[in-house]
Amino acid sequence: MSGNPQNAPSKTSVSFAAPKGTRDLYPLDAAKRRFIMEAWRSASIRFGFDEIDGPTFEHLDLYTVKSGEGIVSELFSFRRAGGDDDYALRPEFTPTLARMYAAQARQLQRPTKWFMAGPFFRAERPQRGRLREFLQWNADYLGLDVPDDATEQTKDEARARADAEVISCCIGFLRELGLGPSQIRVKVNHRSALSRWLVSRNVPEPRHAELFGLLDAKAKMRPEEFAQKLAAFGFSPQQSEVFQKGLIRVTIDNPASTGEDEVLDLTFFSEAVAPLVRALTAAGVLDWIDFDLSIVRGLAYYTGMVFEVHEAGGKERAIAGGGRYDGLVSLFGGPSTPAVGFGMGDVVLSLVLEECGLMPTGTALLQRSGLCPDAFVISNGAPETLSLVTSVVAGLREQGLHARHSYRSTTNIGKLMKDAVACGSRFVVILESVAVATVKNLADGSQQQGVPLDGLPHLLRNSCV
Amino acid sequence: MSGNPQNAPSKTSVSFAAPKGTRDLYPLDAAKRRFIMEAWRSASIRFGFDEIDGPTFEHLDLYTVKSGEGIVSELFSFRRAGGDDDYALRPEFTPTLARMYAAQARQLQRPTKWFMAGPFFRAERPQRGRLREFLQWNADYLGLDVPDDATEQTKDEARARADAEVISCCIGFLRELGLGPSQIRVKVNHRSALSRWLVSRNVPEPRHAELFGLLDAKAKMRPEEFAQKLAAFGFSPQQSEVFQKGLIRVTIDNPASTGEDEVLDLTFFSEAVAPLVRALTAAGVLDWIDFDLSIVRGLAYYTGMVFEVHEAGGKERAIAGGGRYDGLVSLFGGPSTPAVGFGMGDVVLSLVLEECGLMPTGTALLQRSGLCPDAFVISNGAPETLSLVTSVVAGLREQGLHARHSYRSTTNIGKLMKDAVACGSRFVVILESVAVATVKNLADGSQQQGVPLDGLPHLLRNSCV
Repeated sequence: MSGNPQNAPSKTSVSFAAPKGTRDLYPLDAAKRRFIMEAWRSASIRFGFDEIDGPTFEHLDLYTVKSGEGIVSELFSFRRAGGDDDYALRPEFTPTLARMYAAQARQLQRPTKWFMAGPFFRAERPQRGRLREFLQWNADYLGLDVPDDATEQTKDEARARADAEVISCCIGFLRELGLGPSQIRVKVNHRSALSRWLVSRNVPEPRHAELFGLLDAKAKMRPEEFAQKLAAFGFSPQQSEVFQKGLIRVTIDNPASTGEDEVLDLTFFSEAVAPLVRALTAAGVLDWIDFDLSIVRGLAYYTGMVFEVHEAGGKERAIAGGGRYDGLVSLFGGPSTPAVGFGMGDVVLSLVLEECGLMPTGTALLQRSGLCPDAFVISNGAPETLSLVTSVVAGLREQGLHARHSYRSTTNIGKLMKDAVACGSRFVVILESVAVATVKNLADGSQQQGVPLDGLPHLLRNSCV
Repeated sequence: MSGNPQNAPSKTSVSFAAPKGTRDLYPLDAAKRRFIMEAWRSASIRFGFDEIDGPTFEHLDLYTVKSGEGIVSELFSFRRAGGDDDYALRPEFTPTLARMYAAQARQLQRPTKWFMAGPFFRAERPQRGRLREFLQWNADYLGLDVPDDATEQTKDEARARADAEVISCCIGFLRELGLGPSQIRVKVNHRSALSRWLVSRNVPEPRHAELFGLLDAKAKMRPEEFAQKLAAFGFSPQQSEVFQKGLIRVTIDNPASTGEDEVLDLTFFSEAVAPLVRALTAAGVLDWIDFDLSIVRGLAYYTGMVFEVHEAGGKERAIAGGGRYDGLVSLFGGPSTPAVGFGMGDVVLSLVLEECGLMPTGTALLQRSGLCPDAFVISNGAPETLSLVTSVVAGLREQGLHARHSYRSTTNIGKLMKDAVACGSRFVVILESVAVATVKNLADGSQQQGVPLDGLPHLLRNSCV
């Protein structure tokens, strides 16, 4: 691709671009990434999840064992020159999590609550909301807070608490960023409750996976085609219209208040998700939730509750998705382990934050990302203070302060003050002589004159910490 | 590789391991990584560097154009299925940095100071201090603080200031972690000063690269072989012994105080690095520095100052390395741009921190990584408070507090208090009734009784922020 860069500058600048579907993050982009990563981390920790991470690439078969050979075309896979192991850049975290949990299952406390946030990779065509390299936050709750020999009903209650805790963490993050239930809907379904409901409607269990696939693919079908396929499961055209339009929102507390019950009798389903509703109520997040029978999640490994987080207007792809995957840890050689978790990427989230005006910009972004200097040091223009700037700055940094100075050749104090304001500095230190400085507080405009230089770090540290 | 995991559990557990040379980070390992990453970031920001990042993989030719085809065997390279672009996992950051700077050079301020920290990959044999996936911190200073038309001497002074600023940032990080000049030595050489010195010794310029390669490879040669090869450049066996043993430490201020001057006349070299010595003195870091003629750095693109950071005992590989690379940005299609920077990996650094007892552990690690809960909520054992724990915790989290509770079935307050202490919680909240709680401060043992539950978030927030 490259040619000779020295001789062909125009061709070079094309050649030396970031790979398609990846991003160059210049300082403002990196500050936005930092803002999101820190908010993910902060929500995770606040909700009691412990940080972990795995390799950026894994053995290829870690992904094929779970998702089949079909996933290979969506992966960036490779071998080391001279090696014979097949690797793939991680497209998701769950297989790594299951492998790590399986390897240490006996020593880990129950439940184990883990989170991670880092880069992931998909070899798909880049489009709005989807890149080839993106960041993803994962939070997972493995095991239950009841003994292994508890009754199935007790375990169902414990599963519901765990499900609600994971959903709450996701919502807690969104709330912290300033989003609310009028902007964001968390669409929840329950695969096993749905299964039980289907059994009660005489749809045999071997056909459920087929129906889930149909619900998952409904956006890709014409309504008549969808209705025709649903008819094979005993649903009327009117009923499949309810599925098709995504109207199925069950208010569990008061099922009679929605119209869907006249079309589909969901009492059985409502009873099955009642423990989850109670747990979501205790967590104070029920107002964010819609129960939506059409959410099934494409991945084959979910076994219970599944959910997707959407911008309320439905304009973008899902912001996050997850669910319960009780069979996965044993697939990776570990003991049978109930588990629930979700993933949230940064691409759709960023679009939604920008649209809602909640992505900070300018000095607010610098402040929220911890990037504003404590002090900006300038000379009063005299030669003896000009040559002192570097060592005063060095002294402040040595004391743990974020200190900056201008690299411009100007000695115009007004221009230098503007530089200090532009980078959001909290204080400006004007060196008045080799012994004293004036310290200005840019937030309130106050100033202190005649501050001895050797007392500067102490004064600023007390003001800044 | 895998076989069927369900039928062959023992084979499975071998198959589902992290790839060779990569790491699974369980919570304590992840907290150590976080500790290092935050310290890198904190030092970078304190020294006025702005965060950037690029893709985790790049076009393969981004690396071959700089380092030649020979580097391919050290890379993890791949294609997308069905695509025809060759990619490689990034083995270092400098090519990405040069590409990003070149693309925006006209809009960027001078100097531009950038840092990044993230994962890098080398397909080499893993060994002590070297993994296939590792973290690396990069800090770079591009451009100078003088006009393009300044005299060469003025530019040399500006280069020395930039070089010193980059070295100071690296040292500032090490100092922040508790390391000092008795444990760490920063070995500095200057390729162009060395070149000028060699010219003054009648070694012609075309042969300098050969000599640099020899110095770089000296550890891999027998002393006699090294001496023989140096003889071709006019150095005596006594002189090559000085190179061989790495004894060449030039104290610029007082050259007469070391013995090397009797063997090698370094006056010319000392004069050339004098601006750098002045800048390092102003930055307050000269006591960390050794001038060492045998440091050349393997990479071909360095043009001026080069440095390596070593544990003083010389037991480990270099902790960090870097230097000036004034020709690289133009190689990537940008304008001719003076630049200096360094990279520091996490693997050798962690070994050195562990050896020096400076890697925090236990509760100190949790505290320094910001992982200690603000509050640990427990019930007094009464049924009405037991059922309240979840919603009290949820209410505290909603107020931005890090709140935890036990998942154990015990209601023994003593055991639950131990759990609170173990995770380093600052306060314990004991629910005494549906209306009030006792709040214990675990740091000083003080406690406050009869705190109304609805005032709890306020009380804790004021104590914790």
